[in-house]
Amino acid sequence: LDYQHVQVPFEITLWIMLASLAKIGFHLYNKLPSVVPESCLLIFVGLIMGGIIYGLNDRSPPVMDSDIFFLYLLPPIVLDAGYFMPSRPFFENIGTILLYAVVGTIWNVFGIGFSLYGICQVKAFRLQDVSLLHNLLFGSLIAAVDPVAVLAVFEEIHVNEKLHILVFGESLLNDAVTVVLYKLFRSFCEMPTIKSVDVFAGVGKFFVVGLGGVLVGLSFGFTAAFTTRFTKDIRVIEPLFVFLYSYLSYLTAEMFHLSGIVAIISCAMGMKRYVEANISLKSHTTVKYFMKMWSSVSDTLIFIFLGVSTIGENHEWNWPYICFTVIFCLIWRALGVLVLTFFVNRFHVNTITSKDQFIIAYGGLRGAICFSLVFLLPDFHRKKLFIAATTVVILFTVFVQGMTIRPLVDLLAVKRKRESAPTVGEQIHIRFLDHLLAGIEDISGHWGQYYWKDKLEYFNSKYLQKILLREYDQPKSSIVLVYEKLERKHAIELAQAGQLGHGPAHPSFLCSAFLCSSSDRAVITDQKLEDTLNPDVLDNMQEILARNLYRIRRTGPAYNRHTLPGDSEPTERAKEILILRHKSL
Amino acid sequence: LDYQHVQVPFEITLWIMLASLAKIGFHLYNKLPSVVPESCLLIFVGLIMGGIIYGLNDRSPPVMDSDIFFLYLLPPIVLDAGYFMPSRPFFENIGTILLYAVVGTIWNVFGIGFSLYGICQVKAFRLQDVSLLHNLLFGSLIAAVDPVAVLAVFEEIHVNEKLHILVFGESLLNDAVTVVLYKLFRSFCEMPTIKSVDVFAGVGKFFVVGLGGVLVGLSFGFTAAFTTRFTKDIRVIEPLFVFLYSYLSYLTAEMFHLSGIVAIISCAMGMKRYVEANISLKSHTTVKYFMKMWSSVSDTLIFIFLGVSTIGENHEWNWPYICFTVIFCLIWRALGVLVLTFFVNRFHVNTITSKDQFIIAYGGLRGAICFSLVFLLPDFHRKKLFIAATTVVILFTVFVQGMTIRPLVDLLAVKRKRESAPTVGEQIHIRFLDHLLAGIEDISGHWGQYYWKDKLEYFNSKYLQKILLREYDQPKSSIVLVYEKLERKHAIELAQAGQLGHGPAHPSFLCSAFLCSSSDRAVITDQKLEDTLNPDVLDNMQEILARNLYRIRRTGPAYNRHTLPGDSEPTERAKEILILRHKSL
Repeated sequence: LDYQHVQVPFEITLWIMLASLAKIGFHLYNKLPSVVPESCLLIFVGLIMGGIIYGLNDRSPPVMDSDIFFLYLLPPIVLDAGYFMPSRPFFENIGTILLYAVVGTIWNVFGIGFSLYGICQVKAFRLQDVSLLHNLLFGSLIAAVDPVAVLAVFEEIHVNEKLHILVFGESLLNDAVTVVLYKLFRSFCEMPTIKSVDVFAGVGKFFVVGLGGVLVGLSFGFTAAFTTRFTKDIRVIEPLFVFLYSYLSYLTAEMFHLSGIVAIISCAMGMKRYVEANISLKSHTTVKYFMKMWSSVSDTLIFIFLGVSTIGENHEWNWPYICFTVIFCLIWRALGVLVLTFFVNRFHVNTITSKDQFIIAYGGLRGAICFSLVFLLPDFHRKKLFIAATTVVILFTVFVQGMTIRPLVDLLAVKRKRESAPTVGEQIHIRFLDHLLAGIEDISGHWGQYYWKDKLEYFNSKYLQKILLREYDQPKSSIVLVYEKLERKHAIELAQAGQLGHGPAHPSFLCSAFLCSSSDRAVITDQKLEDTLNPDVLDNMQEILARNLYRIRRTGPAYNRHTLPGDSEPTERAKEILILRHKSL
Repeated sequence: LDYQHVQVPFEITLWIMLASLAKIGFHLYNKLPSVVPESCLLIFVGLIMGGIIYGLNDRSPPVMDSDIFFLYLLPPIVLDAGYFMPSRPFFENIGTILLYAVVGTIWNVFGIGFSLYGICQVKAFRLQDVSLLHNLLFGSLIAAVDPVAVLAVFEEIHVNEKLHILVFGESLLNDAVTVVLYKLFRSFCEMPTIKSVDVFAGVGKFFVVGLGGVLVGLSFGFTAAFTTRFTKDIRVIEPLFVFLYSYLSYLTAEMFHLSGIVAIISCAMGMKRYVEANISLKSHTTVKYFMKMWSSVSDTLIFIFLGVSTIGENHEWNWPYICFTVIFCLIWRALGVLVLTFFVNRFHVNTITSKDQFIIAYGGLRGAICFSLVFLLPDFHRKKLFIAATTVVILFTVFVQGMTIRPLVDLLAVKRKRESAPTVGEQIHIRFLDHLLAGIEDISGHWGQYYWKDKLEYFNSKYLQKILLREYDQPKSSIVLVYEKLERKHAIELAQAGQLGHGPAHPSFLCSAFLCSSSDRAVITDQKLEDTLNPDVLDNMQEILARNLYRIRRTGPAYNRHTLPGDSEPTERAKEILILRHKSL
């Protein structure tokens, strides 16, 4: 028996296996996951495992290594989150999200830090040796909402898209703030005196860390897209590039002390559109599947490790400090959300309701990031107190808040996610309004969201696509693609119903819907189609439509010295009709 | 800049990235890979990289760590090989493969060992201090044909299936022999005296190592299949189990000093059939895709590392010893193939031609396994000589033999792999002959290959399927499945040609082909279909057919005291017709 030799990969494989089997176990009984969130069950499994290890060895089980967490477990989850991020609601609410993530987090850090310092002044609690700086340091690590925990809970309760993206986006983007504040206070703790220069440098760092992360991420993302231009002959390694470049962006950002989370999200969001167009359908299935698989396993491992690490003798149970930490976390978050939403609502027509505010405040779960950060603290005599407080806050938020949020959402009748995807008709209307608003903004000279979106889209189609897409030279009209897809789908269903050869010849019918661009006709077509299409296919079609309907508007600028208005469009449309007619012959 | 923190994952990612980019680079120019095998190009890239590292640092570049090779790089390649192993030719030639792998390898080990010992006795070469045992140890590591190198070359030259499986199967299965002999001689080298008991124990070990590997592999394979019965609700982690269990089988075998390669191959071959039936189609695509991707990257990394490790100062260039090693490797392999094939041909009707024998002998490439084993040798004063000799043998076989084997195959007009998959008609004929031969063997009382195959199939459908497959209770007739697939395919093509609604109604036509089981009708149908089906789809259909056509024969034993003959079959057929009619209404 030679265990030493295979120990490392063997134990890693066994942990992953345990995680996967636990996941299967929970799903064997359908009732369990619908009552208790999976994250709670996994922590529970971890607690049992930790108890067993503790009982057998009579010493604390190994805690989750912060390096393992930050280098191996966190990236897959964030990559998955970034890659599947619904970009429209994200960018529509980017201002609000940033406000919550940056101002809200700073508010929480200082709020919690100063109030806990106040508690430390009470003589009865015997905490007078915890300095203000240490309290602020603790505040900086406990204030950050955790994307892993939020994702695990919010994926199960299906609140409406806006609410989801507000909580989830905040949890992702507050990483930059947390990293800066945590490192700032940690370095302050080790300095003899603090100069005002250092404080200003800290403020400057926010921008460097956040924007640097975005830059690193985007540059890796575009490189990835560019690389997949050349993989036509070796399809089999295409998925690899998506993972390699994303991971490199994360590592590079971490190496330069930038925000790795922000970098990997920018990378994923930046590359997605181009990579999808370049790689084969099977590669894309593999990428999506593997990303989900990987993030799901990482997520499971993190919660199990959280449970395992809780058991042991790393804790100093000063209950006043711990209880006040939980209370302050709740209070300051609630206050922060109230105040910030007040300002947000003044500038928006589509306001955040008080129910939504409650869920945003209540959904501020803490998780493995806090946990890893507290173990990364330099050794000082109260570290064990901080570990105990962090553990209790995490368990409280995950168990109490995580388990009650679903009943609360039901009770408050919070607006849910709509079950069905928007119809093609709605989609066309939304697009139409987008163009309209962009036009209005253009005329009124107001540089709003729609204006920038339009400019970005223009830049994309003019330059980026040419560089990053393989088949830009011979673009197949996307509407023809959708039409083909519909036809194929229709044919399959006819075949499955055994009606091949008997049904009416649909092409002409669909064709007319395509050629006339009036939207009411499209709606009629759509309602008939929807009976025969499953949501997945519709989703895909809508993505293609969404990506390409811009082409219709871009008939050239209203006035241009070099071209006559509407010069290129008619020929293109004629070409599309030609392609279609060629197909149907 | 905090490089230390991210060093390990960063460097791994960079190496993988380099490997992938090198692969892309080779395929950018179509001419290059068709002349030079990819393995040579990769070694060349490695040599350049190694040269650069050597030039910059002025010390030997890092050699490939044997642990990394055996624990991380080799398993994906062997898993891929085992999972995609064509099982019919493999089991048809298992006797010949085992003969080559076991007897052939022993022949080579002792042949090379003793002849090199003879060379060492020549005073002019100054090698008298290399003992017989050391020569045999060296023989045991240099004799083994390398699966990675063989796969890399033979995948590109497309020889006929039998020849391919003979060389490739041998390269995989000789691992057990190599491991035993290598460890035996290594322990002998360290013993003061060798007793005859030790020698006999060594012989016994062959069986333990080989059969133990098979047992470990099969038990993990069946556990994997059993686990995938319960993954219906969490499709996303299904692919994981395939990888986890295979890897565990490899590690467990290695842990108990059994053959990891044999274990992982048995695991993959054992689980494949059941896992495929249990997991979803998308999961299966992911499994196949990821396996190919992973093995392709491992393969690339291995050859690059081979190149890098060649550069440096680890070598003792005693040219007589090195040259005679190359010569003896060639001679003993050629002799071994000749002698063994002589015996094989006496017992087979379908003999191995002399051209085939030449290619088998010439295709005995050495690769990274020898290389890793020679670095694992305990330190003694001639280790550097062995390293030099191994390096030269590997480079010689990969470059000279690898590059000339394609022209030689062309020159000798070796029978090639047939380009098209066998038609459904041929497939049915082959099945028919199988049943016929099984019947003949049954009657004549001869327990041959077909008899055992039939028994195994019976055991499988009677017990294994019930335990390992999820949907055994409600099996969908496979022929109905194939029919549906054909229909679907047909419908899509009609849609693509724009003829939906105009073409003739095919169902009845296909239906009749299905209902009448005479094979000539099937051939006619088949020829018409083949024009419209791509090889991939055909392949898939044939797999389903191959797996299920056994059902037709199993009408119950010819005579049985408890049932009347032909009791169950008619009802089943009636049911199938019913299903079909229901579909077409």
